[in-house]
Amino acid sequence: MVGPPAETPVNSGKPISLDLNVRGLGLSATLAIDARCRELRAADRSIYDFGLGQSPFPVPAPVVEALRQAAAEKDYLPVRGLPALREAIATYYEEHERLDAHPQRVLVGPGSKELMFLLQVVHYGEMLIPTPCWVSYMPQAQILGRRISRIHTRFEEEWKLTAAALVRSIEAVNDETRPRLIVLNYPANPTGCSYTGEELGELAEIARRYQTIVLSDEIYGPLHHDGGHVSIARYYPEGTIISSGLSKWCGAGGWRLGTFVFPPQLEWLIDALANVASETYTSVCAPIQHAAVTAFRGGEQIERYLAHVRRILKTLGRRCHEVLTDAGLRIPVPDGAFYLFLDFAPFQDRLARRGIRDGATLCQGLLEDTGVAILPGAAFGRPRSELTARLAYVDFDGERALAASEKFPLCEALPADFFERHCGRVLEGAQKVAEWVAT
Amino acid sequence: MVGPPAETPVNSGKPISLDLNVRGLGLSATLAIDARCRELRAADRSIYDFGLGQSPFPVPAPVVEALRQAAAEKDYLPVRGLPALREAIATYYEEHERLDAHPQRVLVGPGSKELMFLLQVVHYGEMLIPTPCWVSYMPQAQILGRRISRIHTRFEEEWKLTAAALVRSIEAVNDETRPRLIVLNYPANPTGCSYTGEELGELAEIARRYQTIVLSDEIYGPLHHDGGHVSIARYYPEGTIISSGLSKWCGAGGWRLGTFVFPPQLEWLIDALANVASETYTSVCAPIQHAAVTAFRGGEQIERYLAHVRRILKTLGRRCHEVLTDAGLRIPVPDGAFYLFLDFAPFQDRLARRGIRDGATLCQGLLEDTGVAILPGAAFGRPRSELTARLAYVDFDGERALAASEKFPLCEALPADFFERHCGRVLEGAQKVAEWVAT
Repeated sequence: MVGPPAETPVNSGKPISLDLNVRGLGLSATLAIDARCRELRAADRSIYDFGLGQSPFPVPAPVVEALRQAAAEKDYLPVRGLPALREAIATYYEEHERLDAHPQRVLVGPGSKELMFLLQVVHYGEMLIPTPCWVSYMPQAQILGRRISRIHTRFEEEWKLTAAALVRSIEAVNDETRPRLIVLNYPANPTGCSYTGEELGELAEIARRYQTIVLSDEIYGPLHHDGGHVSIARYYPEGTIISSGLSKWCGAGGWRLGTFVFPPQLEWLIDALANVASETYTSVCAPIQHAAVTAFRGGEQIERYLAHVRRILKTLGRRCHEVLTDAGLRIPVPDGAFYLFLDFAPFQDRLARRGIRDGATLCQGLLEDTGVAILPGAAFGRPRSELTARLAYVDFDGERALAASEKFPLCEALPADFFERHCGRVLEGAQKVAEWVAT
Repeated sequence: MVGPPAETPVNSGKPISLDLNVRGLGLSATLAIDARCRELRAADRSIYDFGLGQSPFPVPAPVVEALRQAAAEKDYLPVRGLPALREAIATYYEEHERLDAHPQRVLVGPGSKELMFLLQVVHYGEMLIPTPCWVSYMPQAQILGRRISRIHTRFEEEWKLTAAALVRSIEAVNDETRPRLIVLNYPANPTGCSYTGEELGELAEIARRYQTIVLSDEIYGPLHHDGGHVSIARYYPEGTIISSGLSKWCGAGGWRLGTFVFPPQLEWLIDALANVASETYTSVCAPIQHAAVTAFRGGEQIERYLAHVRRILKTLGRRCHEVLTDAGLRIPVPDGAFYLFLDFAPFQDRLARRGIRDGATLCQGLLEDTGVAILPGAAFGRPRSELTARLAYVDFDGERALAASEKFPLCEALPADFFERHCGRVLEGAQKVAEWVAT
């Protein structure tokens, strides 16, 4: 029942009437890998599931308890969100980013993905997207028939957008004042890399020069491994929309709560988004919004949760990074989140001799040979021929790991055998990738 | 903080770049009435709030308890919905409508409004919408730049679409095989009226003749006052999408859970919708889906809840209907839901002498003079000049009324003074409308 749809849809004889923009959607490499994982599992193969980007950690206990308390909340909430929640979110950004955030300029949606979709519905302009990038920006543009311009970044720059590359991309078109929206995502999916304050300042300067809006996707911000996340809004407050939500730092992907915070200069944009929201999702689930107030207000229990989560992710990320770079892969050291972006370019010739000449074939071969599931770079906007892939180091029991971590003071490092004991499959899978490229 | 947005948006000097389709959205009569209600309340005026169409009843206790139990569910669920929920929904339609519903052809979304929007995103064709109709079908089409064809119905036919009117509308265009989607909504918002089996059979025949898809919005189905709801899918299974959700019958509007059920012949459409859903809302809130299983499985406690709700709504609707038709208004007797659609046409001349020549002015005048808030027919797709309006008889404490109703056996009618005691403001408001038209 959860399987893929029937292969040959029954048709009544009447031609299928689908918008051309949506025909052929969803036949992605991601789904192909997913389907093959299911088949292999059904055949009792052991799978290292490094594909799906879901936090392995539970929702913090006080937030779950807040949801229980709010279970009887049944009223439609205001389109922009529960006032107490918008206030908690505004306060969060005031405290964490020293922003002049106002509750009236906060928009709560059923996931930041939905908010980004509606942003593409209302904004009339071009989107500039540095790649590798999160999987959904481009299909959303395709669905709506919007124009997107990709800016390919390079391993040598940690797959990050540079100010120079941004200028080149804007000036390549004979239309400097074109309305544009630049998407930045840091710590990044799929690389885990983040920008330094200096880099953000340089990008801000370019954005300001061309009066370009920045959609700053900071959903992994609280999962910066050193707690050192900084928003570009500090450097470009007037043109930045900060996107975030509960899915990653709060382990609540399935709850579906995303947030957008706008500056006063972009009030016209939040107004338009709220109007469209009122004709689409209406408002976000009331009990979830009540619970989210507890999450955004934070407090000692939630800070401690985050500190443990960061400690685990940071060390685990570096352990995997070490194993894989020792084997010869090119990977920048992650600054946050739970991803590594693997570049198999040094093995190009060797892989070609095995018939592997693109990312999708690489991931399929790796899955067949080792049971390790990772996603090809093409899913993240990279050229199909490129031998890159994203590894999500999340295949462990986050609840158990968190409980174990709590036994060791936060001022210390976790003991050497912690990861073998609690994240053994992740280390094992990384080792298998290392051995696979060496053969 | 919940107030309307600042009136003059600050702008950075750069032109506002909004898609033309979304400019000017949201400046509706509905919002104007809402805003005026707030002002009057702030000035201590007593308001009879018959504007918002929200169920006054609480979510049934076993469903709230199920949400509490599921509070820690945090995983992303499959795009189409939790398998157990889709199974419960399919079983519900098998039992209630004798349909061959399969869980694989059920789609769960964050409100049926969102699903309808995505349906307009993917379906390439024209929508036929009988008016008066629910407020969001047309703004959705406007946002997407889709084509809509309105079919105005008449009071004399209880504001219902007739087979003859449907044929006329289709044949008026020189393109009989055009891909079309007819929207039917019954029991209807804003009229409370439903179709008989015979009427559905006739409409089904026309839909089949022109191979037209029917989007059957049955969200008020379980609130048919006699529990006698029947779907057009019984007559036109191969071409009907049934739309429903928890918002109305389960009193859970703020929970945001809607459902679409497709026939095998429209699998291409659910596939496309699911693909777009995976790039927008992703999946519906996990704890809510787990709780919804209890709602759709039903059982004795939920049946009893529904029986009490129906008994209250039926009698209250008829009491209001009596007061208002005695005063001379034209209103069909409602079959379900909690709406009356008032036609002030008999008072046209008298109202004109008071300067009232359209529905919006009528509703504003009524609100100023009596404190009764109702919404003009134009909000429901009717001509602006028409003197019609929707009254939602929901301004009472549903929890208290339900508890009081439970003291009287379901086989009996509620005692004569029940409504004065528990729904006094509704009767008072109806009386005020009656007196207002008489002056």
